[in-house]
Amino acid sequence: MLTVKRLSHEEARVLLDGAARKAREMGIPMCNAVTDESGHLIAFDRMDGGKISSISIAVDKAFTAAVARKGTHVYNDLCQPGKPTFGIHITNGGHFSIIGGGLPVTVDGAIVGGVGVSSGTAGEDQVCAEAALAYFYEKTGLKP
Amino acid sequence: MLTVKRLSHEEARVLLDGAARKAREMGIPMCNAVTDESGHLIAFDRMDGGKISSISIAVDKAFTAAVARKGTHVYNDLCQPGKPTFGIHITNGGHFSIIGGGLPVTVDGAIVGGVGVSSGTAGEDQVCAEAALAYFYEKTGLKP
Amino acid sequence: MLTVKRLSHEEARVLLDGAARKAREMGIPMCNAVTDESGHLIAFDRMDGGKISSISIAVDKAFTAAVARKGTHVYNDLCQPGKPTFGIHITNGGHFSIIGGGLPVTVDGAIVGGVGVSSGTAGEDQVCAEAALAYFYEKTGLKP
Amino acid sequence: MLTVKRLSHEEARVLLDGAARKAREMGIPMCNAVTDESGHLIAFDRMDGGKISSISIAVDKAFTAAVARKGTHVYNDLCQPGKPTFGIHITNGGHFSIIGGGLPVTVDGAIVGGVGVSSGTAGEDQVCAEAALAYFYEKTGLKP
Repeated sequence: MLTVKRLSHEEARVLLDGAARKAREMGIPMCNAVTDESGHLIAFDRMDGGKISSISIAVDKAFTAAVARKGTHVYNDLCQPGKPTFGIHITNGGHFSIIGGGLPVTVDGAIVGGVGVSSGTAGEDQVCAEAALAYFYEKTGLKP
Repeated sequence: MLTVKRLSHEEARVLLDGAARKAREMGIPMCNAVTDESGHLIAFDRMDGGKISSISIAVDKAFTAAVARKGTHVYNDLCQPGKPTFGIHITNGGHFSIIGGGLPVTVDGAIVGGVGVSSGTAGEDQVCAEAALAYFYEKTGLKP
Repeated sequence: MLTVKRLSHEEARVLLDGAARKAREMGIPMCNAVTDESGHLIAFDRMDGGKISSISIAVDKAFTAAVARKGTHVYNDLCQPGKPTFGIHITNGGHFSIIGGGLPVTVDGAIVGGVGVSSGTAGEDQVCAEAALAYFYEKTGLKP
Repeated sequence: MLTVKRLSHEEARVLLDGAARKAREMGIPMCNAVTDESGHLIAFDRMDGGKISSISIAVDKAFTAAVARKGTHVYNDLCQPGKPTFGIHITNGGHFSIIGGGLPVTVDGAIVGGVGVSSGTAGEDQVCAEAALAYFYEKTGLKP
């Protein structure tokens, strides 16, 4: 029998609060999503003004980061034409995101979930996802 | 030019809080979703223990209630074999829910969003969605 | 942080072995699938002669039993026309199975995975899934 | 009338065992899939720690190798922007894999199935798929 650690709902909301704080600071209303370590959605917020097209993108970014275990920006590099991972962006029913803004959530070295942000540029989304993680570790006292 | 009234993110979260309060009272961890009047997700919570299969069901219930403008339980009645609306449950890419637990959110007679609850029986889900609406009107002072 | 118990690959294969033993005894080559508690496939076997149409059905049965937390035959009863859960069979992207032959795998009261069997009648599939569980508890010494 | 040679379930499991042996040697838990010559799944194993996003990728690699009759890495080369096969990765409902790690299984010059490996880099996956084939020929005494 395996034993797995997983974000609680309360912890997921801390991540969303962290993303929203940064989004407000940046002046960009975002879609923010948190999944568990198996890629299933725990919590989601579309801030007033967040893009409708970003609802599923944010969820897909969180999914990908959790289950493929890398930031989605890493897969953007790996998935360039001419590279051997080119093509991964259309797998998993189109839900494999290669756009920056999705990051795994780790606790004591284990992936316990994923966070995904969308509505800005890929770079802005990633900054916001990083801020969500920083806020999460600060508030919970947990260690990456 | 049309002017459309739409739930804000803050108001959507009041609905989710109302659903969660009732779910805790009932002892059933739920998946709770709120969409805007166009059926697009604003906010979502899977309480600890909410069913994974209910994530998309809750979202589909909120979507259906908002855009088809009836409680999903009403469509359950309308969609029985032998009735002229039979078959509607497989429309909209399979996202048209006919299971009770989705209700339109109205303000001054206009539909401004939808709320969807899933993880219990259809009846339990509906009770929880109704409690979300009651809490929403109480907290915001808005009128159906 | 939540802590979750999950079937290991070795345990999943014990379930598949149990299903195959019963299938051979019944003289029906089956498709047998085991998922983890989040509904993700761990192991699969199509016995020589198992139906091609049953590949995805077996996987969907295991998925449904794990994440909706009931035997798929239970949902067959609940999803009859005239009942309030009618319509659940087309949710989850069409992966929600209401055909008998899917059972949750529980250990000490917690769902740790799902087993799905397909190629016979719904009743035969269910007998085989039950045999898989019985074999699993006998071999591992674990308790439901 | 055509007569078709096809991997048996027992032979498919030899391929999975070969893949798992190499994966353990490399220290990378993999998702391993084997399809028949028609691209339909015969057997699948997700080793403890294999990526969830790699479940469908491994199956798609085995499918593609069997039915498109080339290693998936070959299609990666053929499917570059500017080349006439660019675009093939989105065909077949998104199941056409162009990421290395899928290889046809041939016996006496005929394709009898496909093997797909995923969770490492494309190169690591391919090494593992090649090891599966080598183990298969060694154990069965069959010739490519």
